[in-house]
Amino acid sequence: MELILKDGSKLNVGCGISGYEAAKAISEGLARAALGVKINGRVQGLSEPIAEGGNFEVLTFADREGRDIYRHTCSHILAQAVKRIYPTVKLAIGPAIENGFYYDFDFKTQITKEDFKKIEAEMKKIIKANLPVERKVMKRAEALKVMKGYSEDYKVQLIEELPKDAEITFYTQGDFTDLCAGPHLPSTGRVKCFKLTSLTGAYWKGNENNKMLSRIYGTAFDKKSDLEDYLRMLEEAKLRDHNKLGRELGFFMTDENVGQGLPLLMPKGAKLFQIMSRFVEDTEAERGYLLTKTPYMAKSDLYKISGHWDHYKDGMFVLGEEGKDKEVFALRPMTCPFQYTIYNNGLKSYRDLPLRYGETSTLFRNEASGEMHGLIRVRQFTISEGHLICMPSQLEQEFRGCLDLAIYMLKCLGLDKDVSYRFSRWDPADKEKYIDNPKEWEYAEGEMKRILDHIGLDYKEGIGEAAFYGPKLDIQIKNVHGKEDTMITLQIDMFLAERFDMSYIDENGEKARPYIIHRTSLGCYERTMALLIEKYAGALPVWLSPTQVRVLSLTDRTAADAEQIARRLNKNGIRAESDTRSEKLGYKIREAQLEKTPYVLIIGDKEKESGVVSVRSRKDGDIGVMSLDEFEATVRKDVDEKILW
Amino acid sequence: MELILKDGSKLNVGCGISGYEAAKAISEGLARAALGVKINGRVQGLSEPIAEGGNFEVLTFADREGRDIYRHTCSHILAQAVKRIYPTVKLAIGPAIENGFYYDFDFKTQITKEDFKKIEAEMKKIIKANLPVERKVMKRAEALKVMKGYSEDYKVQLIEELPKDAEITFYTQGDFTDLCAGPHLPSTGRVKCFKLTSLTGAYWKGNENNKMLSRIYGTAFDKKSDLEDYLRMLEEAKLRDHNKLGRELGFFMTDENVGQGLPLLMPKGAKLFQIMSRFVEDTEAERGYLLTKTPYMAKSDLYKISGHWDHYKDGMFVLGEEGKDKEVFALRPMTCPFQYTIYNNGLKSYRDLPLRYGETSTLFRNEASGEMHGLIRVRQFTISEGHLICMPSQLEQEFRGCLDLAIYMLKCLGLDKDVSYRFSRWDPADKEKYIDNPKEWEYAEGEMKRILDHIGLDYKEGIGEAAFYGPKLDIQIKNVHGKEDTMITLQIDMFLAERFDMSYIDENGEKARPYIIHRTSLGCYERTMALLIEKYAGALPVWLSPTQVRVLSLTDRTAADAEQIARRLNKNGIRAESDTRSEKLGYKIREAQLEKTPYVLIIGDKEKESGVVSVRSRKDGDIGVMSLDEFEATVRKDVDEKILW
Repeated sequence: MELILKDGSKLNVGCGISGYEAAKAISEGLARAALGVKINGRVQGLSEPIAEGGNFEVLTFADREGRDIYRHTCSHILAQAVKRIYPTVKLAIGPAIENGFYYDFDFKTQITKEDFKKIEAEMKKIIKANLPVERKVMKRAEALKVMKGYSEDYKVQLIEELPKDAEITFYTQGDFTDLCAGPHLPSTGRVKCFKLTSLTGAYWKGNENNKMLSRIYGTAFDKKSDLEDYLRMLEEAKLRDHNKLGRELGFFMTDENVGQGLPLLMPKGAKLFQIMSRFVEDTEAERGYLLTKTPYMAKSDLYKISGHWDHYKDGMFVLGEEGKDKEVFALRPMTCPFQYTIYNNGLKSYRDLPLRYGETSTLFRNEASGEMHGLIRVRQFTISEGHLICMPSQLEQEFRGCLDLAIYMLKCLGLDKDVSYRFSRWDPADKEKYIDNPKEWEYAEGEMKRILDHIGLDYKEGIGEAAFYGPKLDIQIKNVHGKEDTMITLQIDMFLAERFDMSYIDENGEKARPYIIHRTSLGCYERTMALLIEKYAGALPVWLSPTQVRVLSLTDRTAADAEQIARRLNKNGIRAESDTRSEKLGYKIREAQLEKTPYVLIIGDKEKESGVVSVRSRKDGDIGVMSLDEFEATVRKDVDEKILW
Repeated sequence: MELILKDGSKLNVGCGISGYEAAKAISEGLARAALGVKINGRVQGLSEPIAEGGNFEVLTFADREGRDIYRHTCSHILAQAVKRIYPTVKLAIGPAIENGFYYDFDFKTQITKEDFKKIEAEMKKIIKANLPVERKVMKRAEALKVMKGYSEDYKVQLIEELPKDAEITFYTQGDFTDLCAGPHLPSTGRVKCFKLTSLTGAYWKGNENNKMLSRIYGTAFDKKSDLEDYLRMLEEAKLRDHNKLGRELGFFMTDENVGQGLPLLMPKGAKLFQIMSRFVEDTEAERGYLLTKTPYMAKSDLYKISGHWDHYKDGMFVLGEEGKDKEVFALRPMTCPFQYTIYNNGLKSYRDLPLRYGETSTLFRNEASGEMHGLIRVRQFTISEGHLICMPSQLEQEFRGCLDLAIYMLKCLGLDKDVSYRFSRWDPADKEKYIDNPKEWEYAEGEMKRILDHIGLDYKEGIGEAAFYGPKLDIQIKNVHGKEDTMITLQIDMFLAERFDMSYIDENGEKARPYIIHRTSLGCYERTMALLIEKYAGALPVWLSPTQVRVLSLTDRTAADAEQIARRLNKNGIRAESDTRSEKLGYKIREAQLEKTPYVLIIGDKEKESGVVSVRSRKDGDIGVMSLDEFEATVRKDVDEKILW
């Protein structure tokens, strides 16, 4: 049997050799580091026999798949330990995830993080015992019997949902057996170091109508120093977490009477929103965009034309009931049908194109309560949404323009280095999710790919990630927790122009169908706000700071002067406030620092007499005395050049 | 019997004398002009006997009540004529209104405005015949019999809704009898001149579940020249009608798939919205307001606290159903509960007060489809809503500040001369509409009246016009059609602070209840946009014009220069666009004029060579040649000083 290694070299091994033995045949060191193997793209455990020749790869902790095997085994060790300590617990599921693993439990009596210590101690025992992990395949009926025997109701349900003739794998380590697709490490002793990190609630199968289970998160590494680095990073991320810091700094709040996923922007957050949205609106105007302002709801009729009613209804807030109410409305999940309606008002000529419509647009998504999170997962959000309607010959230039605008925005926010690009394509097999017209998809995806390759963008492809009406270029960003989200999206919309019967009169006087680019130049403002708070740990660049300057009076004698200076700064377009309380200067400076104010001015008798201000910057501390004109010029430079500190 | 005249003089008349005879006893001329009389505040017809002595007034066309009698008789003449021409028509109601009268008919076959001519001819016959108008009182049973005899189903329904023992009046003129409370002119010949003006649909009793009837509007005057003036004014108003002009100029559109009452702001309208809302936000920031941005929906829980659920639910868009859905949301009809929730985030001290929250806030009102109109009656609108939370000692100063801000806004828009003030009070009898706490109402209305009188504002009072939570000062404005609406409102909110348990720690360290002023500094943007379009017939002041300058190229040779000048102007904050089409200059100028562009620049070879621009202003026509710097300074002055032309 011939195995082809990653470097192209070939290795002849005996039939039925295990992954571990094959690794050993390459090198002893590799075998020691090995966590699993990959044959012709299929991942399997080290103990399993290799069934066929072909491309062969040894997976170590450096590979995502290797780490997943390692951490998946650790999640079984967690379940085994929990089961030993709490024999009445019922097990749900326990996968590896990006930076660790979790396991969902149904405890008879709720546990707390205080219990982690004893669970971790038990896990260490299991690791020390170095129990071999054994794989076993069973028929469905047998598998059901086993899990009913253990009274594992959730596992029974999982098996029942599998096809009748499914082959079901189990993994056993000592006194513990779990239903699991695997693969796993050969024995529990292979796990070097781990840590349980958090405890949250999670609905069974993620459905809020199901029971709330307890999810224990953990992580595992193969080196102690890496674990420590990771835990330190986690602590740091916690400190930057917008959901904590954003509230503490007064950017936003939530309220149980208002509802989950409906954050209230407090004065600082509302100001930041205003700064960003005005910047986007003005930049777009400079680039030839026309502003629109369209209603947040429409009759179902509109969404039936656009296809949202068929492809997106579950994600929409619907007002009224079809067949019962005279008019059924829905809150809008996207702006497209509204801007298309405006386009259709009056005949358009090729001379009018390209038409670039932009709107600071509030959208609504009907998501489950349990999934809401800070400013990131919300039910109402606002984006700078736009549609460019152009002739085929203008498509590439307009697409480039959109990308250029998006990158300019990212640079101004200091986020341009944190993004990656994803070409999101449809999944021809998913007839529910997409408008079914393979020819059109092929054409539009071909066009987009051609443009992307022409631009020379470094992108990855994602199948089944397109919008229902066309392919997308998604600009992805990772937050401090390492979680990736789409920040900006550029899409070619090829069906809605037809559905809305949009047209223009071309150079020959004939009616023609325009192309549409659907895009955001800056993504969801709420999410961007969260990203900025986390990126800068709340210490926003001057141009984005809700308050740029705080003017402190040194004594009551200079209180009026401090107030007057703040007023003058505001009049000159610099966001300033004064603090003239009769508190000690140190106290007032510390408070301004805690609020991450970029500049603090101190006005004492000396400054008052000589008509200057003492300046402290958040970045450089005390930067000395200067005239107010000089100081204003400094701030203005920070703002105009969008300097990032 | 003694009658006391308006000038205080007394007139002794015989018992049972008619109104006409009493008028004649004063003067022959007065009797000729008389249309009705008023005895002790009660209006009656000229032919009716005066039953008692007391205050006596002769009503002429100069009095609203006199005009109403005159026009009400004319509406009967209309009904009589229609009945003669279309014997199968059924009659509904036909009152006098502010500038005329209408009558609602149920036609077997729909009529059009083309039919007005023959109806008017028949009306003239009835007037010429000078039929006496006779009043008759009947018992309910007899009245029913009469109207059933005529097969007047709507009249039968009206009578059936009256109390059993009601005395019912009928008025007969020749072959026509109508159920009517009166009073009327003594004979049809008294109507001098009239005109049928329009034909619309109207639901029976204004309820959209009832049948749609045909409403014929008309007006009548006692002088031909007054009728002509009025009709001319009506034509002028039609030309200014925002619902026509606003669409033609591209400010907004509506679409049947989006739904009624949900206008889409097109680029010009969206830009005007942006200009106004930024102006308001910036002005409020200067005046110490803190911006908020709160969600457009909340759980029913929030509205239950605020009282909206009990007092305002019918006007709200509700998502989901209580008792059925886990969470019920509603779109917000006001911003109050959201800003109060923000106030309640964190303890407040007397040092924090007054706190002034402002938000450019979108609101939703669930109104019937039939009532929607252009930008005036809408289901979704945006206002600059704010709440000032203050100590009792700060209330008057803050209220004055709000009024000052509102008047400043009106001045900037040029609307300050068009408003009147209305002190809107509660109606203690209406237990449904208001929070029932007479003592608190008395106190808050007393406070408000004291402040208004102290300011010396000229206001009228309106009983039953308060918000459900407190009294209001409404700033009322009339549109070009003479219809009055509330534009800006200032309210003292005395119940919600308690309901939301809002508090602050006072100077003595005690928990105290703040006062709240609920206010708009500029009313609903959609409505204000409509008022501006009508006031200026679309030719908005420079600072409000979506496009301030259009740069025209005289020939293709100067096309690039025109574009460059437009770019430079935009860069310098002046909203400019270029027209470089190869069309004749006159054509391009006319088009700019039709779009009401304040300034047009013309760039020919001569201008190009000497580096100047030829300027035409909408107001003064050709104003000659100047440097671009000079021109920019001119525009900047218009904008900075908000010059109104």
